[in-house]
Amino acid sequence: MANVAILGYGVVGSGVAEVIRRNAQAIKSRSGADINLLKILDIRDFPESPDRGLFTKNADEIFENEKIDIVVETIGGTGAAYEFVKRALKKGKHVVTSNKELVSSFGPQLLEMAEKMHVNFLFEACVGGGIPIIRPLNQCLAANEIAGISGILNGTTNYILTRMRREGTDFNVALKDAQLKGYAEADPTNDIDGYDTARKIAILSSIAYNEFVDAKKIHIEGIRGISHEDMQYADKMDCVIKLIGLSKKVEDKILAMVSPFLVSKSNPLASVENEFNAIMVKGNAVDELMFYGKGAGKMPTASAVTADIIEIARNEKRNGKKVWHVGDNDILLKPDDVELKFFVRLEVSDKLEAMNLASRIIGNISEVSLGDSEVKNEIAFITPVKKEKQFKVEIEKLAKNKAVKSVISKIRFLNGSLNLNGQ
Amino acid sequence: MANVAILGYGVVGSGVAEVIRRNAQAIKSRSGADINLLKILDIRDFPESPDRGLFTKNADEIFENEKIDIVVETIGGTGAAYEFVKRALKKGKHVVTSNKELVSSFGPQLLEMAEKMHVNFLFEACVGGGIPIIRPLNQCLAANEIAGISGILNGTTNYILTRMRREGTDFNVALKDAQLKGYAEADPTNDIDGYDTARKIAILSSIAYNEFVDAKKIHIEGIRGISHEDMQYADKMDCVIKLIGLSKKVEDKILAMVSPFLVSKSNPLASVENEFNAIMVKGNAVDELMFYGKGAGKMPTASAVTADIIEIARNEKRNGKKVWHVGDNDILLKPDDVELKFFVRLEVSDKLEAMNLASRIIGNISEVSLGDSEVKNEIAFITPVKKEKQFKVEIEKLAKNKAVKSVISKIRFLNGSLNLNGQ
Repeated sequence: MANVAILGYGVVGSGVAEVIRRNAQAIKSRSGADINLLKILDIRDFPESPDRGLFTKNADEIFENEKIDIVVETIGGTGAAYEFVKRALKKGKHVVTSNKELVSSFGPQLLEMAEKMHVNFLFEACVGGGIPIIRPLNQCLAANEIAGISGILNGTTNYILTRMRREGTDFNVALKDAQLKGYAEADPTNDIDGYDTARKIAILSSIAYNEFVDAKKIHIEGIRGISHEDMQYADKMDCVIKLIGLSKKVEDKILAMVSPFLVSKSNPLASVENEFNAIMVKGNAVDELMFYGKGAGKMPTASAVTADIIEIARNEKRNGKKVWHVGDNDILLKPDDVELKFFVRLEVSDKLEAMNLASRIIGNISEVSLGDSEVKNEIAFITPVKKEKQFKVEIEKLAKNKAVKSVISKIRFLNGSLNLNGQ
Repeated sequence: MANVAILGYGVVGSGVAEVIRRNAQAIKSRSGADINLLKILDIRDFPESPDRGLFTKNADEIFENEKIDIVVETIGGTGAAYEFVKRALKKGKHVVTSNKELVSSFGPQLLEMAEKMHVNFLFEACVGGGIPIIRPLNQCLAANEIAGISGILNGTTNYILTRMRREGTDFNVALKDAQLKGYAEADPTNDIDGYDTARKIAILSSIAYNEFVDAKKIHIEGIRGISHEDMQYADKMDCVIKLIGLSKKVEDKILAMVSPFLVSKSNPLASVENEFNAIMVKGNAVDELMFYGKGAGKMPTASAVTADIIEIARNEKRNGKKVWHVGDNDILLKPDDVELKFFVRLEVSDKLEAMNLASRIIGNISEVSLGDSEVKNEIAFITPVKKEKQFKVEIEKLAKNKAVKSVISKIRFLNGSLNLNGQ
């Protein structure tokens, strides 16, 4: 029997209460775990809630209650949530959270505190919502050295990119549609500028490589700059454009970044559409795996939180998970030092001259044309594989030329050395 | 420290030894588990093997050795493997196996024996090779009632179907190609007639519904009957043809079957190609998830076996997994009682008359045409949704008519009530 308290009765917290209520019998018969929801902390009143008998506004009733074994934190942010989680761990209670901001900011400290107190600090719901990914990385792939991870980790941006591609709408129109449908928030920065994806790839990388990867220190680009024309070019190149959180072990260093990428249609990530998420992992024994599902939403996220609760209830002891090593910042490799290919669109005054210049400066480029719908005063091409640092110097040199008016787009390809499935 | 013995140094067994050897450090640093390979049982000699110091031909050296905690069975079949596994469990040793024939035949007995002896009997590698699916079903989805499972569970048939579709080759040509490339065995029955898929969907269903589903009692159809023309029609209907192992909870009963299905291209299973496997699971909280990866092969399978070993080494105690309830056979629903749609091709002497007859007997059918490459003396159509039992009666009645010479194909659609992702 495990006694649980939930901190914060918002979307996820009330979902967890509902999953426990609805599926208690299935949980018991399939896992043998007996879970009892004892208290819910929230400053608001919920007189109509089926859980109304369990509410308290007094945190002491949870932290000073010795009967409570597991504290579920679904408040969000790094204010009260951080204080409560520390207090719970110090009191020797297991903690389960869905709070990716908390884990990506204070993961090392909280994992260490949990280890010291011989309790669990679990956070399956932080990445990929209902998709099991943290437990598989920790357990199922425990026999592998992880070579890399690439994922569509944010449903809002994937929904927007899917609309843009399918309906030919521009970014702003697709964003408004996503906001109307509830897939994007009024202030969408967190999603569309890549911060949410950065936190998630940072958490996955920290687990995979056992080194703390700080989300604040990785290279982040969002999707504001992507246009419908970019999508048309992508289609010509048998690619789609996806916002990818990527990390890769390169010798002793880790490349971690968030950016829109051109993804070949033969890559399983290309067919992940709408609000769905998918995470590809490459291990040295298992080769490539992909995990696909709903990356957000009340019930999928609650399902992941509850799975963590069940794991604790079944094992009743610390699961021996390692804390994340906090090394110096030098473990992070910058995109500058990686070899890749770019797709480039230039606004030009003279197409022929600009193409000649581009060949001379960048090397063996291949032109991409939209055919009938070709645009006047624009050239588009794919660069050869080269270090990003070098490409930047070259494109700057090119842009200084009279024949080139502006750089419209430059988008990285997810292939060659960056691609986990080698296409 | 966990001491391991491997029974059978074939492809998988030698892979497990290799994974332990190569990744011991990664295993230790990521999971804290210390794994020591102590003995290998094989009747053959391997003087060149890096594990040569560990071999024995005497089973007593393993079963009577109290130091050995975990026995890995990678012999295969249900002869010696069954006897050895029983002996190991009786001796109070944990057992890990990759033997799906063993688990699908004797799972209930062996799980019960393991429970009695307070040891683990784990078999992640039995389904989906390196794809983590059994542990996610047991643990990550423990908070869900499972509504259904559908999967591409056999790499050989998926490779053959992919070749047929892409290159327009016929079944026999694609099968020979698969045999040449090592994807199909000399006697391919087990794979192409669906028995391998049946064992896997039976194991997954037994876990998901906590009721033993006997592979021998489920409806099985293989892919011998699929032609390249069927694939062309499928393409016209925006579908591909896949061999699907399917199970679904229908009230108190379980529908479990193996059959080629027409899968809509918008279903993520449709883009699973070549030798890859994928398993879609629908839970009442998490909604749909898909797990994708290499379903076979030495290292992926060894990775899954080793993950089971690590789980035991970390927990050092029985994980409280439930034994499978063995009910009466009535829990299995037959396809006859399920409502679905069929695609039908008929060889006819009179197209117009045959279409009229088909409409009259089967109801509101929709004709499918290959366009330019349309075949003389053939009609093709999609039936309305109806019970399979009723469809069978109708198609028999139709076939008795003079205008109809023969039934060329009838292929089920994976949509409507059968489809987990609701398309």
